[in-house]
Amino acid sequence: MAGSTFGTIFKITTWGESHGAGLGVVIDGCPAGLYLCEEDIQKFLDRRKPGQSQFSTPRKEGDIVHILSGVFEGKTTGTPISLVIYNENQRSKDYSEIASFYRPGHADYTFDMKYGFRDYRGGGRSSGRETIGRVAAGAVALKILNQLGITFTTYTKSIGPIVCDERLFDAMQINQNALYMPDAEAAANASAYLEACMADGDSVGGMVECVISGMPVGIGDPVFEKLDANLAKAIMSIGAVKGFEIGDGF
Amino acid sequence: MAGSTFGTIFKITTWGESHGAGLGVVIDGCPAGLYLCEEDIQKFLDRRKPGQSQFSTPRKEGDIVHILSGVFEGKTTGTPISLVIYNENQRSKDYSEIASFYRPGHADYTFDMKYGFRDYRGGGRSSGRETIGRVAAGAVALKILNQLGITFTTYTKSIGPIVCDERLFDAMQINQNALYMPDAEAAANASAYLEACMADGDSVGGMVECVISGMPVGIGDPVFEKLDANLAKAIMSIGAVKGFEIGDGF
Amino acid sequence: MAGSTFGTIFKITTWGESHGAGLGVVIDGCPAGLYLCEEDIQKFLDRRKPGQSQFSTPRKEGDIVHILSGVFEGKTTGTPISLVIYNENQRSKDYSEIASFYRPGHADYTFDMKYGFRDYRGGGRSSGRETIGRVAAGAVALKILNQLGITFTTYTKSIGPIVCDERLFDAMQINQNALYMPDAEAAANASAYLEACMADGDSVGGMVECVISGMPVGIGDPVFEKLDANLAKAIMSIGAVKGFEIGDGF
Amino acid sequence: MAGSTFGTIFKITTWGESHGAGLGVVIDGCPAGLYLCEEDIQKFLDRRKPGQSQFSTPRKEGDIVHILSGVFEGKTTGTPISLVIYNENQRSKDYSEIASFYRPGHADYTFDMKYGFRDYRGGGRSSGRETIGRVAAGAVALKILNQLGITFTTYTKSIGPIVCDERLFDAMQINQNALYMPDAEAAANASAYLEACMADGDSVGGMVECVISGMPVGIGDPVFEKLDANLAKAIMSIGAVKGFEIGDGF
Repeated sequence: MAGSTFGTIFKITTWGESHGAGLGVVIDGCPAGLYLCEEDIQKFLDRRKPGQSQFSTPRKEGDIVHILSGVFEGKTTGTPISLVIYNENQRSKDYSEIASFYRPGHADYTFDMKYGFRDYRGGGRSSGRETIGRVAAGAVALKILNQLGITFTTYTKSIGPIVCDERLFDAMQINQNALYMPDAEAAANASAYLEACMADGDSVGGMVECVISGMPVGIGDPVFEKLDANLAKAIMSIGAVKGFEIGDGF
Repeated sequence: MAGSTFGTIFKITTWGESHGAGLGVVIDGCPAGLYLCEEDIQKFLDRRKPGQSQFSTPRKEGDIVHILSGVFEGKTTGTPISLVIYNENQRSKDYSEIASFYRPGHADYTFDMKYGFRDYRGGGRSSGRETIGRVAAGAVALKILNQLGITFTTYTKSIGPIVCDERLFDAMQINQNALYMPDAEAAANASAYLEACMADGDSVGGMVECVISGMPVGIGDPVFEKLDANLAKAIMSIGAVKGFEIGDGF
Repeated sequence: MAGSTFGTIFKITTWGESHGAGLGVVIDGCPAGLYLCEEDIQKFLDRRKPGQSQFSTPRKEGDIVHILSGVFEGKTTGTPISLVIYNENQRSKDYSEIASFYRPGHADYTFDMKYGFRDYRGGGRSSGRETIGRVAAGAVALKILNQLGITFTTYTKSIGPIVCDERLFDAMQINQNALYMPDAEAAANASAYLEACMADGDSVGGMVECVISGMPVGIGDPVFEKLDANLAKAIMSIGAVKGFEIGDGF
Repeated sequence: MAGSTFGTIFKITTWGESHGAGLGVVIDGCPAGLYLCEEDIQKFLDRRKPGQSQFSTPRKEGDIVHILSGVFEGKTTGTPISLVIYNENQRSKDYSEIASFYRPGHADYTFDMKYGFRDYRGGGRSSGRETIGRVAAGAVALKILNQLGITFTTYTKSIGPIVCDERLFDAMQINQNALYMPDAEAAANASAYLEACMADGDSVGGMVECVISGMPVGIGDPVFEKLDANLAKAIMSIGAVKGFEIGDGF
């Protein structure tokens, strides 16, 4: 079954591997007449890009987006928007070590069992780089939603045992620390905690919180297509996400 | 958008309101040759049925399932299986009080805004009775999965502050208390706790845990159709569910 | 793969066999607030019903429709509309002769190969009775389209070599002859031609023409979801239909 | 509604305009382990390419395909295959004349009404160049089907009044004349007929016939997903196609 397409009216199809020629997304169903340029998308790819702080993958990635279709004279035309991000230096590395064993916490074994062989150059389709297509499509969706008065505030709520203090919530702070936390003190503590984990060769989970404002009444449909259900599917389909709560949650 | 259909290969479509003529489900894509009779489904509808303990809705419901198609000489034929459960006494009640205000915690206001009017006889399509179609289809799905060696153990993990003790886990206990808890002592405590809540006119949340055994490697598809993502969507689409975790979760 | 569902926004799911308990359709996505009663649907089922003239299957069928959900106080609620038509006398017949061989021009062999066994009581799911669900759903769709100013004129254009003369087209004539032809002389000729065919134990094909008026500009979507393409799929999915033309056609 | 995706298990999403940066297709659900290289696809793009005879658009097109994902060490990986064909010289032309009026037989007016503006550089998404994505995906599908023993013979059956003589059918002849006809005499006649039409500034229709061999029993699903219905939808979604017949047809 083909699993790389999401959505019905605004429909995205992502493609690409971590070590292939590139990655991209086709966005079909975007309304015509929306002003759209590469910079609208690039700014989110730049935030997604690893190697920006000591806490993420040190690998350097350019991740420059190109719009190949669906935009004419600066506006969307209502036809599919094809976005491509070429991989750089995808050929040089020596994968002999990675090719000979299954890495824990990766989909290596699963891919081998499901497809009969695997792309041993890296995570391939199950690499974190797969989210490039989601981020690019999300940038376009966000532009539409913002025009409709729907806004998002998203931040790291907790890392391991370090939880942001709601009383200290400061939206301005979110983009001012490498961990995207809205509480400067928690960010400092989480930073120290992560350094200790990394020194031990360990990793740790956390929680991301997203506050959506300006929603009209009645979005979503009864029974199987509730908004809650589709948000849960979208978020749970991101690699490494293990839980989803809405409203008061658990 | 139509929201009452779920699934691609094994596809279910539910219908029916709490106070209409009946509720049901059409199951399309069930393999041919599966032995199936009404009792296979009825036993799960009987467990779903409220009014069996003092903790659930006291309303009496017969909830007798009828197979209208898709089964011939005791076996499925590969064509759609139509199941119907007729409502009893759906006409007699006086709804004048319910019709005049929106009930907190119900979808009354949302339905009115979305559709322009609402079925003031009760929750209608957003009533808990909507799950009858899911339970009936689930009984058929379970029979197929069991034949493939996939089994489910499902129980109440916690109610309010009362959490089952994993060391006292007893699968036999699950169906021996009205709260479906695998720990008899927790069940007794939760029962007392619920009685106190009900005396205060209050309600309380809880957690349900499901352990799935016998899964083959490679079920689900990369990116948007991961098994995690589709399970989350299915569970989060049940009314009143507010969170979903998989594996170690949060 | 489940094949009994059609449509995205207005989505129909049909079920039922020629010799089971009944047939029906679930219509999901019908707008709320449409006046709808059983008579709106029954009048089309009555036209569909065989045994009304000497040229169709002599079997008598009651085919009374029941609305089980989705309508409240005479108007649709926006939730699924479940329609059921119970089969009468579905148990008495002796099928021993039919059970022992594959009938030419039926799906008997195909069903046996695909599903491993077949419902030897008759065509089952591939019987002409399967169209009952389509006709019932079509009656609801027609009511919506008519309110939008879209109207349909449908008639038999030709039977075997007998073709209606466009210059003699008379819309009033369509429902006044058993063959639904808009040209009385052609209808008389076709009637004589069919009697001769039946005397020879032969069957013959024909063409149905449908003129749709009042269509707004821009219905359908570029590339794979063109209106032409979806009409062709819908019509070609009717048993025994072998060709489709639009506009000037061939 | 997004209309650029077709299929469920083998799912294709096409994108691109006649005068944009390029065109392409994402193929999702292709089985892993299929040998696939650019030449497998290029040979069909070369046949599709106009400017090869005096009867088709004189425009020169390179139409070189690039595989951007889904193939590793010469074999498909089971993940999406992204194919891109860059447009050449897409910027230089003067469109001022075309921009000022709607061309008959094109979708110019419809696009303007539906989307509020149009890409006046040419047909855009409704240009014949849109079929590039279909041909590229079709080349991959064909390779899979051929491995399963399913083969296709496709040719021009008629052009205007010139119909190939079935008794003179010669499969070898199909690729030896510019009109892909299996009857050399008919091809010569059709060629003369087309030259006369072109001298008059006129166009003419024709029929394409496709013979599929090696089909297993039972492909397709009952009711709405019959093989006939899906073939009809696929073919009728090609621009300028106005009719579809199967088996004996009309």
